[in-house]
Amino acid sequence: MVKMMREVPFGLGVDIGGTKVLIVLANPAGEIIFQDKAGTSRDPAEIIGIIRASLDKAGVQAGQIRGMGVGVPGNVDSTKGWVMDVPSLKWQNLNLAELLGSHFPFPVYINNDVNLSALGERWLGNGRGTDNLFYIALGTGIGGAVIANGALVEGYRFGAGEIGYFLEKADLRNGLRNYSCQEFGVFESKASGTALTRKAEPLGLTPRELFQGFRRGVSGTQAIIEEFVLDLSVAIANVVSLLNPEKVIIGGGVSESMECVIEPIRESVAQFSPFPTEIVLARLGGAAGAVGGAAYVFQNHQPGFPDHSDSNEPGRT
Amino acid sequence: MVKMMREVPFGLGVDIGGTKVLIVLANPAGEIIFQDKAGTSRDPAEIIGIIRASLDKAGVQAGQIRGMGVGVPGNVDSTKGWVMDVPSLKWQNLNLAELLGSHFPFPVYINNDVNLSALGERWLGNGRGTDNLFYIALGTGIGGAVIANGALVEGYRFGAGEIGYFLEKADLRNGLRNYSCQEFGVFESKASGTALTRKAEPLGLTPRELFQGFRRGVSGTQAIIEEFVLDLSVAIANVVSLLNPEKVIIGGGVSESMECVIEPIRESVAQFSPFPTEIVLARLGGAAGAVGGAAYVFQNHQPGFPDHSDSNEPGRT
Repeated sequence: MVKMMREVPFGLGVDIGGTKVLIVLANPAGEIIFQDKAGTSRDPAEIIGIIRASLDKAGVQAGQIRGMGVGVPGNVDSTKGWVMDVPSLKWQNLNLAELLGSHFPFPVYINNDVNLSALGERWLGNGRGTDNLFYIALGTGIGGAVIANGALVEGYRFGAGEIGYFLEKADLRNGLRNYSCQEFGVFESKASGTALTRKAEPLGLTPRELFQGFRRGVSGTQAIIEEFVLDLSVAIANVVSLLNPEKVIIGGGVSESMECVIEPIRESVAQFSPFPTEIVLARLGGAAGAVGGAAYVFQNHQPGFPDHSDSNEPGRT
Repeated sequence: MVKMMREVPFGLGVDIGGTKVLIVLANPAGEIIFQDKAGTSRDPAEIIGIIRASLDKAGVQAGQIRGMGVGVPGNVDSTKGWVMDVPSLKWQNLNLAELLGSHFPFPVYINNDVNLSALGERWLGNGRGTDNLFYIALGTGIGGAVIANGALVEGYRFGAGEIGYFLEKADLRNGLRNYSCQEFGVFESKASGTALTRKAEPLGLTPRELFQGFRRGVSGTQAIIEEFVLDLSVAIANVVSLLNPEKVIIGGGVSESMECVIEPIRESVAQFSPFPTEIVLARLGGAAGAVGGAAYVFQNHQPGFPDHSDSNEPGRT
């Protein structure tokens, strides 16, 4: 094991969240050799300290690392490694790639955490083996990530994937618009974890209890969950018609309660879009972003990574 | 001119439509040196004859041609050059690349006509200089094409772009679904040229006259056009939120009457999606597909084609 660790160049994935930092070391074969967690910080110097401490704990030298892929919950110019806006950390126009890169001898890549989660699920989660997938992050808000032709589609200004802004004509009649990125999007205001919390509150339930209640037939939960399933199915179907992905992966905190609604969602989407697609829940949970950070490193160094012929090999997470 | 024609390898673009075949010869600099038109045929042997006759008329030898890009109005497996379904020509599971390729000494590439129109507009039309665009074909039906990271996004089974299948919850309440690709899509049934024809009929107008009437304030046209603008703006906004394209190009027959509604569409989309985008009408008209066929040849041979630094150079069409 020590021998392998000396020889193999590792990918270092770092997921900087609003409350915690997740760190993963993986080799190109998809083995997670180390995983760590720490409280977050909005001070890049502290982030550097957290990463250093993790590498020490792992007993890995900087020279064994091929590169570091860092995910942040906000808008990132990934070509420059420049963080444009991360509200939860109050980061704006921060050259994070340079700030971190000057303290490490390996290349540093920055991207949006949802994009990296999509890469993570594609590498070692439920998106294995496909070059065309859509990843939905259902948490406090709603985000999304597009992988097409085997690569991230980030759009003109790195905004691609934001189905949280989907709207319908009926929304307009209700006075809803999507004027700016600073506010919740129209679809987000209907189907996010925050929306479910608001809808569950009069019943004295959390979103998780809402899904549990739905499964058990608790009065009042049915209508809320059925509306959620319908809203989500319409959004997914429209994505499927536009992008014809092989797979749609539903991740994020809310998805952990969604086993009981995945079949109704599949049935609805099959009626709402003519293109067959495989709809699955995410597999890596909260680790997807950090795992994707490591995948992002390898993708930037090895054309054609990951090799789909390896796609049945299990990844330890 | 003769000298240039001998030296430069040409791209041959062929757009096989339901009623006519359009042929274009272009050099990599974007000069259209020859253009021809003929009645269509569902017999590949006749298509080969049409192409041969055009090359004779142009005075161009097969050896001067780098390749042929062929667009067809249907579903195509572009990696194999296999036509899966073209209803208007009654083609199904036709190996068109092989059928045509065996009669010419240059490589033959097949794709969907809307995808090629998007490539054409990006090369020599109103999509110049961008790597991220969405192209909408508003004709009898509604099609679309996605260019991201400078390449076509075709999806898992070459179905990407099909916003004609977009739907809303209100459509479901009206009993509408998208069960199969054989029928008109829900959005198509509301905003296509066919839908406008149906809506204009009680007023004794064609779709073109509908737009003219709207401009002049003719009674009854206002409500129909305003609904069309709203339907189209919601669809475009949802595409923009999902893909963050730099430009949205509206082409197809209906677009030729839409100068009077482009500004209202821009204003609506700006309220419906937070991402700025440039919405323009197509420039190449019916030639976009054939021009895109030539562009497709060069894209398959020269990585990075077209060079955006050339993007101000005028193309003759």
